Amino acid sequence: MTKDHPAGKTTRRAFMRGAVAGGVGTLVTGGAAKAAGDAAILEVQPWSRELGVGVDASGYGMPSPHEAGVHRTPVDWLTADPFASINFTPIHKLDGIITPNGVCFERHHSGAAQIDPAAHRLMINGLVERELVFTMDDLRRLPRENHVYFLECTANSGMEWRGPQLNGVQFTHGMIHNVMYTGVPLRHLLAEAGVKLSGKWVLFEGADAAGLTRSVPMEKVMDDCLVAFAMNGEALRVEQGYPLRLVIPGWEGNMWIKWLRRIEVGDAPWHAKEETSKYTDLMPDGRARRFTWVMDAKSVITSPSPQMPIRHGKGRMVLTGLAWSGRGTIPRVDVTLDGGKNWHMARMDGPSLDKSLHRFYYEFDWDGGEMLLQSRAHDNTGYVQPTKDALRALRGVNSTYHNNGIQTWHVGRDGEVENVEIS
Amino acid sequence: MTKDHPAGKTTRRAFMRGAVAGGVGTLVTGGAAKAAGDAAILEVQPWSRELGVGVDASGYGMPSPHEAGVHRTPVDWLTADPFASINFTPIHKLDGIITPNGVCFERHHSGAAQIDPAAHRLMINGLVERELVFTMDDLRRLPRENHVYFLECTANSGMEWRGPQLNGVQFTHGMIHNVMYTGVPLRHLLAEAGVKLSGKWVLFEGADAAGLTRSVPMEKVMDDCLVAFAMNGEALRVEQGYPLRLVIPGWEGNMWIKWLRRIEVGDAPWHAKEETSKYTDLMPDGRARRFTWVMDAKSVITSPSPQMPIRHGKGRMVLTGLAWSGRGTIPRVDVTLDGGKNWHMARMDGPSLDKSLHRFYYEFDWDGGEMLLQSRAHDNTGYVQPTKDALRALRGVNSTYHNNGIQTWHVGRDGEVENVEIS
Repeated sequence: MTKDHPAGKTTRRAFMRGAVAGGVGTLVTGGAAKAAGDAAILEVQPWSRELGVGVDASGYGMPSPHEAGVHRTPVDWLTADPFASINFTPIHKLDGIITPNGVCFERHHSGAAQIDPAAHRLMINGLVERELVFTMDDLRRLPRENHVYFLECTANSGMEWRGPQLNGVQFTHGMIHNVMYTGVPLRHLLAEAGVKLSGKWVLFEGADAAGLTRSVPMEKVMDDCLVAFAMNGEALRVEQGYPLRLVIPGWEGNMWIKWLRRIEVGDAPWHAKEETSKYTDLMPDGRARRFTWVMDAKSVITSPSPQMPIRHGKGRMVLTGLAWSGRGTIPRVDVTLDGGKNWHMARMDGPSLDKSLHRFYYEFDWDGGEMLLQSRAHDNTGYVQPTKDALRALRGVNSTYHNNGIQTWHVGRDGEVENVEIS
Repeated sequence: MTKDHPAGKTTRRAFMRGAVAGGVGTLVTGGAAKAAGDAAILEVQPWSRELGVGVDASGYGMPSPHEAGVHRTPVDWLTADPFASINFTPIHKLDGIITPNGVCFERHHSGAAQIDPAAHRLMINGLVERELVFTMDDLRRLPRENHVYFLECTANSGMEWRGPQLNGVQFTHGMIHNVMYTGVPLRHLLAEAGVKLSGKWVLFEGADAAGLTRSVPMEKVMDDCLVAFAMNGEALRVEQGYPLRLVIPGWEGNMWIKWLRRIEVGDAPWHAKEETSKYTDLMPDGRARRFTWVMDAKSVITSPSPQMPIRHGKGRMVLTGLAWSGRGTIPRVDVTLDGGKNWHMARMDGPSLDKSLHRFYYEFDWDGGEMLLQSRAHDNTGYVQPTKDALRALRGVNSTYHNNGIQTWHVGRDGEVENVEIS
């Protein structure tokens, strides 16, 4: 039904807005049939005759074999080295807002560290009254909180800066996941250590071989950052920083330090590699934007999309997608079927949580004609997701990071979907 | 650290309320140490020297090997037949409110049916204008919704009716899970079929060999029931009814028909086996309560608990647990450390969603003395979770189902925890 590896480069295909009429036609009923002649309902199926599988005695449950195509997938030509690489969440196949832990995308700088939690320590040093070292058991004696947050890699959609590249929403927008974290607010940990008046910035350092470090202003740390040990109810996954990661809601993914082992309080940023030569945004004049932490409002249609073509023909259908903002919630998403000539308010569904993914739907009757699908998120600050051209006008085409531009999918009369741009 | 199979029967041990002083003493600091002499922080660990594991290319991610003890577990003496059996969610090891799909408890009457979704059909017949048959693809063309709901087996805590039996919260309270469902509201499906004015009840039938059937009044069906195809964002798990299950929020688990294949509209209940000889509540006078659908408000402390003894000694600690109500939300949970002499309001944390698990915490300094721990849930209708003795006074001791009584844990000076009752 779907193309599982459409990650080859696509040629840029520009569509004129006027060339597509948009898909709403007369109401065509679809979606249910009479039983006449359908053996699947007229005959007793094998699973109704025979005993199924007994209960699991000590394992960890897995998806149905029929769902084997739903998994994280890398793009070979993008990052060939598996240790300093990326794979992508299969967002085209998911629904709701929770990402199952087994399909949360990965990004490592030196591979996923394999840590024995009994030997893991978290150290606090620098401008504090008391330097402290915590075991994992120590951390579980402090007050903890639960929050659902999205984590988006700042390079998500980065390959699309200069034009359509990757023909699948898993690859254009799949460096994102959304889980419920359980962890200790940083403000409790820093209260233990006693921050000196001169302490204005905090360094977070990972225990992996990359020793990733980032500087975070004290105001953010004290506001909503967590030291998390669980995701979706269970222990963090190894590839998500087991046994401990920083959660820094709404900010770019590389700052969510995994395998967290050290917190240092200082009076200025450290200008670490990952905030100077890396994870900065090169502007047209050769200068770079730095400390561009917040992930701005963004949305994308996950189905239909190149990996989720329309197979059922014309008539009723459900369009769905995801929207999020590092600044808050998403009260509204607009959808167009004709490249922006007509916009429709999508139906927001499910819990609207701060700095979490939001799910939207738009139900309509497809007339079987070509469509140019787009979605446009509005966040609760009033910010509206920009077009890619608007982003390029401001920031040029040297960037990889912070591409939150509007995505366009072309739907053909055959229901096939392609990553395009309107010009 | 924990006892993983404490499911052997325990002898009834009654505690006098006056015998335990309760655990709050003078503040004893705990939970962080200086680095002096701790090689785990003074020396560079192996995972900081060597490359970790590369990104996953096509698999489905699994928990750390250090978390291998976190899994569903049956109780051998309770249900020896794996096909018509039960296992239990490891709620003692979980946090937050989301249950990962891989550890959601199972209960089958004829094993978990292994269904090919391409061959699965959902039929609507009976008192309707149009009998209909839906494929899975047909259902995806109808408007869908996302909701987080708990599912509790009506036999959860059933073994505890006559006194403490199972020495672990996984076994006393682990026939529950809480996930985000994606599905089509029944009201949309029934609108397609056109319910006749005489249609007052709805039968739901499973496609497994048990062919489980239950009758549901039309009012509930039209209110909030879903035909769900996804849980926590991905397809339903096989053991949870893949590819389709009924979601009947707040009502007892056996009614959430798995492998759903048929919906029949009628004018009266069907009096099926599972609502006559089974899943009824035998009263002291020999008569049975029937159609006791709603799961009343309940709570339990998940840590400390027999499988989660206190290992860190006296001083600061976190007590945590779960609360839920089939009638709505849980605005308040009370906790006692001394068997009910003094009650403290717990801190509710995380999203408070309708008919969903709620997480509570109570942080205190343990003086190292014996404790009798209890929690007591209040739901948003004003209902307060009863004691087990109050339940017995009303309903006798012939019941297995609908035991929502207050659970007591005894904590010894050594931090070990035991399932007891206060008398």
